[in-house]
Amino acid sequence: MKIGVVGTGAVGGYYGALLAKNGFDVHFLLRSDFDHVKQNGLRVESKNGDFKLDHVKCYLSPKEMPECDILIVALKTIHNHQLHAMLPAVTMPGTSVVLLQNGLGVEKEIADIVPEAIVMGGLCFLCSNKIGPGHIRHLDYGSIRLGQYQTNDAPAGVTDKLKMMADIFSKAKIPVQLEPSLGKARWEKLVWNMAFNGTTVILDATTDLIMKNDAARSMVAEIMREVIGGARVCGYDIDDGFVDLMLAATEKMVEYRPSMKLDYEACRPLEIDSIYWRPIRAVQAKGHDMPASRILASQLDFLDWRNRK
Amino acid sequence: MKIGVVGTGAVGGYYGALLAKNGFDVHFLLRSDFDHVKQNGLRVESKNGDFKLDHVKCYLSPKEMPECDILIVALKTIHNHQLHAMLPAVTMPGTSVVLLQNGLGVEKEIADIVPEAIVMGGLCFLCSNKIGPGHIRHLDYGSIRLGQYQTNDAPAGVTDKLKMMADIFSKAKIPVQLEPSLGKARWEKLVWNMAFNGTTVILDATTDLIMKNDAARSMVAEIMREVIGGARVCGYDIDDGFVDLMLAATEKMVEYRPSMKLDYEACRPLEIDSIYWRPIRAVQAKGHDMPASRILASQLDFLDWRNRK
Repeated sequence: MKIGVVGTGAVGGYYGALLAKNGFDVHFLLRSDFDHVKQNGLRVESKNGDFKLDHVKCYLSPKEMPECDILIVALKTIHNHQLHAMLPAVTMPGTSVVLLQNGLGVEKEIADIVPEAIVMGGLCFLCSNKIGPGHIRHLDYGSIRLGQYQTNDAPAGVTDKLKMMADIFSKAKIPVQLEPSLGKARWEKLVWNMAFNGTTVILDATTDLIMKNDAARSMVAEIMREVIGGARVCGYDIDDGFVDLMLAATEKMVEYRPSMKLDYEACRPLEIDSIYWRPIRAVQAKGHDMPASRILASQLDFLDWRNRK
Repeated sequence: MKIGVVGTGAVGGYYGALLAKNGFDVHFLLRSDFDHVKQNGLRVESKNGDFKLDHVKCYLSPKEMPECDILIVALKTIHNHQLHAMLPAVTMPGTSVVLLQNGLGVEKEIADIVPEAIVMGGLCFLCSNKIGPGHIRHLDYGSIRLGQYQTNDAPAGVTDKLKMMADIFSKAKIPVQLEPSLGKARWEKLVWNMAFNGTTVILDATTDLIMKNDAARSMVAEIMREVIGGARVCGYDIDDGFVDLMLAATEKMVEYRPSMKLDYEACRPLEIDSIYWRPIRAVQAKGHDMPASRILASQLDFLDWRNRK
């Protein structure tokens, strides 16, 4: 069984390395880190124990990669335009494509590109960074909420394919929670992401500072409620109490910088489209609006534009 | 005829100095600049010609001031709690109180404190800064849109009192435009202020940069439309075309920093309540909402809190 990883960064590099370390046959697509990883392998520092993979099967082009039984897609969403050229080369009928990304709607794109693949989506609860070429630092957490995509976005339930995938991940010590409704899981993740990813960038603040200020805390709570309203419009019923749950969880974190803030600080492009505009458009398509989220998304568009000038 | 000025800063200092220079008997209330102005007078650098007032009638306490026929109130709105102690000391029945401030609702407060005064509101189109003790730099513009307050906020029309005031100002070379509806004039000013004052602070950008970016320009246009909607709910019909008018006017400005941005950069408290929360609450009281404005106001509350910690 061959496992492919496209997007060998903080997420794909971490999970791919865990799978390889635990005996799976993993093939990594690399770009800027190719020479380094070819020569030196992959290095993971982790609170669960550091490790190094000396010999890594790595490739510069999808065309050189074998067709995979499982393909983990962990690109930043801003590179998703590459999927059109990439996916047909590394999949075959029946390949399970596991999309580890934030935001909405990419499973459908994948299913359109490779209709004979089985498409799954995973929400990662993972703190990790790529701190150098082929060098990943895993800080905390690491679980994946995994659901299967079904045409028309209807909940697929907990399928046999999902159970098989959970089995593979668990052999690599990766905790997986199976989600009967991928759509609901994605919206639940958006509740936190739409509230905090943008706000930490716009206000140049870590989560703890936002939680300490009444106005900012009320604002993120309001955005969370708006996202829950959006989820409902799209057919996913998230309980109102989820807001307090998320706020309480955030209060327990220490000085956390979400991925969008890290991207901003490193002058990398921000995932504004997948985390903000896609859900906003999904809700607008149902005849509703997300005015607070639109303000954040517009402010982020401006900041991203200036940041990369 | 005695004219009093409370709030001898960039606005009150400028207009008061012009009135004194043109022969009016002007009495200035000062605080931190008192000693300096007592000894050295007031200095105005202006594109219309620099001038200096060597002997200035100035006071440290409202109780020492004479009762005035005209009282110009040009405090920053964050100091408006001082009006309760201040106004009864320096006014008499029939005094015209001219409030030169942004935002909403303060004329009513003044009328409640000194019910026998005639209350007017002025919107200043003025670029000026206080650059040192008793030292004002006038950069551009300078006109005042002046309207009379009437209990229950109904338009007072162009009254004789307003015409007399315009006459006085025009003798001091201060251009005045009389407004039959003070409420409408205030909301028109809010259209620009609610869009740009907060946005320049939150995005740390001058107006020209905001106008150069599609996302930011769309966002300020949307906030303007929201404010126009709020004005309508409050009974003031501002034409939709006003948005394009304001955007075109802003495009002609060069690298402008609104007063809120200057306050932020100087770590002074921001006029968030008068420019944002008061109009928001006025609209909410009519059963409507301003969600985009509320996001900006909350972000500003956070930034102001952190800025002055």
